[in-house]
Amino acid sequence: MPKILFKNVLLGGSETDIFVAGNRFEKIAPEIVVPAAEAASVEIVPAKNLAVFPSFCNAHTHAAMTLLRGYADDMELFTWLNGHIWPFEAKLSARDIYEGSRLAILEMIRSGTTFFNDMYFESAETVRAARELGIRTCVGMTVTNFTGEEKIEKMFAQLKALPQGGAVGDDGLVRFAVAPHAVYTVSEKLWLRCAELARERGVLLHIHLSETKKEVADCIAEHGVSPVRWLDSLGVLGENVVAAHVVHVDDEEIEILRERGVTVAHNPVSNMKLASGIFRAEAFSRIGAKIALGTDGAASNNNLDMREEMKFAALLAKVGGNPEAVPASEVLSWATRGGFRAFGIDAGEISEGKLADAVFVDLNNERMFPSHNPLSNWVYSADSRAVRHVICDGKFVMRDGIVPAEEEILSAVRSLPLLKK
Amino acid sequence: MPKILFKNVLLGGSETDIFVAGNRFEKIAPEIVVPAAEAASVEIVPAKNLAVFPSFCNAHTHAAMTLLRGYADDMELFTWLNGHIWPFEAKLSARDIYEGSRLAILEMIRSGTTFFNDMYFESAETVRAARELGIRTCVGMTVTNFTGEEKIEKMFAQLKALPQGGAVGDDGLVRFAVAPHAVYTVSEKLWLRCAELARERGVLLHIHLSETKKEVADCIAEHGVSPVRWLDSLGVLGENVVAAHVVHVDDEEIEILRERGVTVAHNPVSNMKLASGIFRAEAFSRIGAKIALGTDGAASNNNLDMREEMKFAALLAKVGGNPEAVPASEVLSWATRGGFRAFGIDAGEISEGKLADAVFVDLNNERMFPSHNPLSNWVYSADSRAVRHVICDGKFVMRDGIVPAEEEILSAVRSLPLLKK
Repeated sequence: MPKILFKNVLLGGSETDIFVAGNRFEKIAPEIVVPAAEAASVEIVPAKNLAVFPSFCNAHTHAAMTLLRGYADDMELFTWLNGHIWPFEAKLSARDIYEGSRLAILEMIRSGTTFFNDMYFESAETVRAARELGIRTCVGMTVTNFTGEEKIEKMFAQLKALPQGGAVGDDGLVRFAVAPHAVYTVSEKLWLRCAELARERGVLLHIHLSETKKEVADCIAEHGVSPVRWLDSLGVLGENVVAAHVVHVDDEEIEILRERGVTVAHNPVSNMKLASGIFRAEAFSRIGAKIALGTDGAASNNNLDMREEMKFAALLAKVGGNPEAVPASEVLSWATRGGFRAFGIDAGEISEGKLADAVFVDLNNERMFPSHNPLSNWVYSADSRAVRHVICDGKFVMRDGIVPAEEEILSAVRSLPLLKK
Repeated sequence: MPKILFKNVLLGGSETDIFVAGNRFEKIAPEIVVPAAEAASVEIVPAKNLAVFPSFCNAHTHAAMTLLRGYADDMELFTWLNGHIWPFEAKLSARDIYEGSRLAILEMIRSGTTFFNDMYFESAETVRAARELGIRTCVGMTVTNFTGEEKIEKMFAQLKALPQGGAVGDDGLVRFAVAPHAVYTVSEKLWLRCAELARERGVLLHIHLSETKKEVADCIAEHGVSPVRWLDSLGVLGENVVAAHVVHVDDEEIEILRERGVTVAHNPVSNMKLASGIFRAEAFSRIGAKIALGTDGAASNNNLDMREEMKFAALLAKVGGNPEAVPASEVLSWATRGGFRAFGIDAGEISEGKLADAVFVDLNNERMFPSHNPLSNWVYSADSRAVRHVICDGKFVMRDGIVPAEEEILSAVRSLPLLKK
């Protein structure tokens, strides 16, 4: 396993050395000296004028939807889905999903993300892309009433063939989840089957929940109760649930979600762009609910940049009238350890013993100037141009701004028949 | 004067050549051939896989406040001003203002901005910085009740000594304006003096207007009417007024502003961060009011990135419930020609005869992929890493990602005594 010694990196206000051994931060201290006997196996990386932050956990996305970036904008969710997104998606091949996922992962790495929670089709292709590029993922197999019995059986069999927890391979980087899409696309019977399978196999349930007013109104009309209450009555909600959006909920529903241990994946950009509504950030935060942050797919964002997402999340929380709501440090924790915790990944903090996932930000970038508060600069001012290195599981996935596979990925996307005019 | 021929650049969906002669776009056509006799004086720049867009007009900022980036975040406007910003500003020297302005201009160039409308102190220093770095500016001399009679007389004398219009030099790049700060810091008498001077000298009035609920309530308590109505009753509002923020206004006030020809400089990030409120984008847009976009100062943003500002503006407009509000093309026009028009600058469009201000964006950047809609990708997806060249007045201010003065600016800021710990 590689060993890396970062020299003189800025961490929380002071310079330090960081020693990465295997896939963890082994030692963090001002002047780490490598014993002569070990010197040959340790790479020393000068990191003066770099600040280190935990890399991001993108808690809700649809990676391969990068292929639909800019395909349809500035319209209402159901028009957008029915008239544009779903017809385009019907044409996607496995190859498209693979290349779209690689493009997404390239973009995520470049903006400091080392894990994404995905929900899409042909999930094996997304898993393959993540493994090749070296970042973590939890890929949800999407289930709806339209998926078809045969395909569902195949997915379930695939999940049952995996070890408990849904992991693919031994390194803990990649695993599968079950992703019943939403209350308006999944029947009661299918919710119960998915929840049972998830419990049985120890995998996550990745769902959309209470995204729009219409979803809530339709659910009440059909089931007599709101989406949160309906899923709770079915016994679906628990610590293994990551629920995206969760915009239209009352105080009691927020309390139900907290009690059940559900992690809420907040997607401010998508919620704003589709005019879905304003996430009740302060209400969730006040009672200590589990909050993570996600970009949603590129079709409704239109990027996968968690730095930008943090700024939107913090600022959207303040729009209600409280400028003290969700300060920079809180939104950074949503985007990092708040997310990783939901997926049982021991990352999201730069401290000894934690998994070595991190982003190294250039303090010589003009947007990190001056250095009154590097954390504030990272959350509110920087952009992906300031990202110098990204490590995942103790290895470089981007170094000095270079992602080795970049050229090849872009040319592969360029030659997809789907995108030819 | 330099002549530049950009070959095969993407403009509005098709590839073209663009010939820049002097400071204007002289010819835009598919295959421009330079006559052999002229070849020596024309530089040919291959621009395949670059898209060209109008560069940005930052219609409201306080450039030198980059020195306060991250100095105080996540608090209410008046606490932030009284307890943090104003005490820090009291310590600023002319040298600080100069270096802070250079840092700001560097950041603006890197993110595609070629004009900024400034309001601050020691305005001659900001003018000097802009002239050195080659971009356009209108620098407002800030006037408040606390400025002091002597200083005001000096400013006014300085303005009177300039040619009609307030221009500095013959190239039309830089000029001065009068900047009465706000209704809560400027007396009736001072408003009248500023407005008279501006009319007399043909210069702009750059003001803050109706930024917070408190400002409006205090104005009504003191003057019996809202800020817009009060200034209108004083005869201050006219085509030479650029009013920043303008958040708390009713329909009638929006109509007054439109009738008077006032340009409203919308600052979505600052308004969200300080929880000032939500700009009534659709109401202004519906009646054809003049709308521009600004970043405000780095202390309340915390960057000067107009691309990011466009995304915030478009998305904030949709939060009210209409996802069709302010589509990408509209917000781009606010950020470009909507602003330039207010300042009488014949830029903001890539067409023959217009001033040659433009940004060249890398279509090989993963965030510009795929190319369903390059304009949407620029507004909603890209960041400053995608900006390859920036031209202002027909000259490169950034070329291949390089701003020549960058290293020197950063080291000058680093050595400011004010920032030493």
